[in-house]
Amino acid sequence: MQSAITFYTNPYSRGGIVHWMLEELGVPYRVEYLEYGTSMKAPDYLAINPMGKVPAIRHGDVVVTEAAAICAYLADAFPEAGLAPPPAERGDYYRWLFFASGPLEAAIGLKSCNLEMTSDQEMQLGCGRLETVVDVLADAVRGRRYIAADRFSAADVYVGSHIGWGMQFGTIDRRPEFEKYWQVLEQRPAHRNSMEQIEAAMAKYPLPDAGT
Amino acid sequence: MQSAITFYTNPYSRGGIVHWMLEELGVPYRVEYLEYGTSMKAPDYLAINPMGKVPAIRHGDVVVTEAAAICAYLADAFPEAGLAPPPAERGDYYRWLFFASGPLEAAIGLKSCNLEMTSDQEMQLGCGRLETVVDVLADAVRGRRYIAADRFSAADVYVGSHIGWGMQFGTIDRRPEFEKYWQVLEQRPAHRNSMEQIEAAMAKYPLPDAGT
Ligand SMILES: N[C@@H](CCC(=O)N[C@@H](CS)C(=O)NCC(=O)O)C(=O)O
Ligand SMILES: N[C@@H](CCC(=O)N[C@@H](CS)C(=O)NCC(=O)O)C(=O)O
Repeated sequence: MQSAITFYTNPYSRGGIVHWMLEELGVPYRVEYLEYGTSMKAPDYLAINPMGKVPAIRHGDVVVTEAAAICAYLADAFPEAGLAPPPAERGDYYRWLFFASGPLEAAIGLKSCNLEMTSDQEMQLGCGRLETVVDVLADAVRGRRYIAADRFSAADVYVGSHIGWGMQFGTIDRRPEFEKYWQVLEQRPAHRNSMEQIEAAMAKYPLPDAGT
Repeated sequence: MQSAITFYTNPYSRGGIVHWMLEELGVPYRVEYLEYGTSMKAPDYLAINPMGKVPAIRHGDVVVTEAAAICAYLADAFPEAGLAPPPAERGDYYRWLFFASGPLEAAIGLKSCNLEMTSDQEMQLGCGRLETVVDVLADAVRGRRYIAADRFSAADVYVGSHIGWGMQFGTIDRRPEFEKYWQVLEQRPAHRNSMEQIEAAMAKYPLPDAGT
């Protein structure tokens, strides 16, 4: 018997990445929608994710937080879905998962805080400048359908989500290589299914005020 | 025949994490020391890591960058070293690898830029406040010898390095749970061997001026 999966999210959040991943797996899961500032900071949920942030999942006794970690975990926990390369061939897979969750997230965060980086900071901060990070990412996807091991994987779900949303929200510029890479991913049935569910949840749980 | 490993680093850098990981593996590797601003930004090395940053490794035809990705890759590429839990049991393993390389790195970076976060930023930035991140990390290691699957793994190399260096450089406060966790790790022969090599390299390649 398979253990049940509970998925904690909010429709206006990075939870969308995990929603897509769950649809790619094709296994049953239960969604629990949490609200910013209230149920997300309540003791029950802080026991799952003490950061008080979404997404998180519980799979049997295992709790995983961090969108990229959840993607990597699920790919390994459900090998029949074929969403991770074999362990010995994971160079690009890990490289780009960690690049997007590390330097890309950090550089976008610093930019959103209007920080002007000195060249010492550029050297010391693990991300460097957003312009460089985005150039490197563009090189990584240029001419490739998938970012790792020449086939679709959890790394595409994670990196693709950053690129797709980044272009939509204006944090990543629209470049031909990004458009081309994203176009293929966006049309996957699992991505569309997740978007339908997210849009339905948005209608049901409108965003109170600000928020992500 | 095993493929050769080349390790690109600088003794004053996050490369120390990978140096320790390589010593844990117990496989041969060749170290190539690069200098800030010069060989690290030369075309030969930019072909390996277009970020112009260390660490990076080349293992046969595979290039991996990002210290956490390199640790995860090497653990999987050399399964006989037993440095990763079996694929189906990687919840905590991925959770804390991604937590340290994502929110922890980002929150330390933002703090080092003296950024005061508004509560909207705290909600939207993937890391939130450094104080929260450090509290969550303290919870994760409290009363545990190892951070994942009750045995030593690549996640301890990566998370432990952040904790050990963080306390040394003052970016993470010295708390009893951090000291206790780090004490065990610090004494591992592989960690000591890497430190000896790093110190020898520091003497040979003194830091020009500023730097990490
Ligand atoms: N590093 C986390 C970031 C999670 C995150 O920041 N989530 C936001 C929504 S996208 C959140 O839950 N914010 C609520 C809060 O901080 O109160 C990940 O990648 O999963
Ligand atoms: N996200 C990278 C960070 C690498 C990084 O920022 N390395 C610094 C030294 S610790 C560097 O090479 N800086 C040189 C530069 O940016 O010119 C990782 O985790 O490996």
